[in-house]
Amino acid sequence: MNNNSNKVNAAVIIIGNEILSGRTKEINLANISLWLNSLGVQVEETRIIPDIENKIINCVNELRKKYKYVFTSGGIGPTHDDITAESISKAFNLSYEFHKEAFSILENHYTPGEFNEGRQKMAKMPSNATLIYNPTSVAPGFIVENVFCLPGVPSILQSMLSGINDKISGGKKLLTKTINLRTVESEIAKPLKEVQENNEEVEIGSYPFFRAGKVGVSIVLRSEEESKISICNEQILKFVNQKKIELIKQD
Amino acid sequence: MNNNSNKVNAAVIIIGNEILSGRTKEINLANISLWLNSLGVQVEETRIIPDIENKIINCVNELRKKYKYVFTSGGIGPTHDDITAESISKAFNLSYEFHKEAFSILENHYTPGEFNEGRQKMAKMPSNATLIYNPTSVAPGFIVENVFCLPGVPSILQSMLSGINDKISGGKKLLTKTINLRTVESEIAKPLKEVQENNEEVEIGSYPFFRAGKVGVSIVLRSEEESKISICNEQILKFVNQKKIELIKQD
Repeated sequence: MNNNSNKVNAAVIIIGNEILSGRTKEINLANISLWLNSLGVQVEETRIIPDIENKIINCVNELRKKYKYVFTSGGIGPTHDDITAESISKAFNLSYEFHKEAFSILENHYTPGEFNEGRQKMAKMPSNATLIYNPTSVAPGFIVENVFCLPGVPSILQSMLSGINDKISGGKKLLTKTINLRTVESEIAKPLKEVQENNEEVEIGSYPFFRAGKVGVSIVLRSEEESKISICNEQILKFVNQKKIELIKQD
Repeated sequence: MNNNSNKVNAAVIIIGNEILSGRTKEINLANISLWLNSLGVQVEETRIIPDIENKIINCVNELRKKYKYVFTSGGIGPTHDDITAESISKAFNLSYEFHKEAFSILENHYTPGEFNEGRQKMAKMPSNATLIYNPTSVAPGFIVENVFCLPGVPSILQSMLSGINDKISGGKKLLTKTINLRTVESEIAKPLKEVQENNEEVEIGSYPFFRAGKVGVSIVLRSEEESKISICNEQILKFVNQKKIELIKQD
């Protein structure tokens, strides 16, 4: 696979026992990845870890040095098991304290007398963090250096992403072309390998699928250069035609 | 959170660019976790990594020392981007070669003349690997020491799990109780924290949800001891009643 050094990369850390236990299915990664792709950033690694302080600290400290951007999801709510903000503070050796603007945003949102201890906790974060605004449920996320901390609830997380577009400096956007074939992987493995060898700068993925009781294969071409994808596409269509394989849909 | 040393733990490694790019949603983790939970094993970490050999080798070698069991998903098919078996061979310094039984299983499955190079590739694995049989699509997974290699297609992976029950020596099963409340997290954060402090050996998770236009909170209690869950449950129901919070469903 190609692994160009001019790519801008990111890692995602999903924090939450409920994901590891299988209780809750993980869907934030795909949303973060697709959004980052649109900004020219590729997610190169994801870790799913429990709500345990030293695991969060170690994971954040390892990945923030390896990747340009790190995104965390989960653990910034009001309850005792929301320990991401305090853990991130410790990872950066920063004090964990009330963020003035976050406090005032939350205080203004609640009717007087309802801004209780749990709600106030959502204003505590690493000192001097930059806020990530939350158009859905007010409680903000935050940024410390290259680490972006977002909530775990998918609809809320999703609504916060576009607000930080200007905080991301991506590289060239990775372009994608998918070729769907009515075949099985083993029928095309050999010619596809040859196409990959002739097109080292295009990442060629092969993914079997089952839809409406029929099997098929999606070939996914990814590159920063439209022209390289086109050349690769032509070479694939050539063997597809030779082998009389049905093209399901070209998108 | 509790982190008892008598727990039997596992890590899951999801291998595949298509998951990291957001193209394919990850669903194998939840299936592996729920199956392992039923055998008394808890998944404590998951990593999602690309189809890049050195990343697979490093990840497997790090996690197989840290966890009792490691499960990989993806990259054992017939195409050029399926590099898990060869990478695992290198991680263990084993030769990557045809497995006699796997070869014969696949050879018998295909009609003569159809057992091509791509299909033969699925019989290549680390020397002396133990097979994991595949009742769905024949091509086996394999085990090397404490590393279990499974395919990425969820339905196929799922069908292979029960066949390896006897390879897993779990600990006490973690029991779970869920209390669903018509409230918001910040209303119960304080008393719930007190219950957690009084019941350190029960893992208490709090998860907001939105269903049919209404918000709610699921409180999830996890422990190896039914009696500890019961005590915890009573303490939660006590403050729930005092605060006149509606119980949605008790399961």
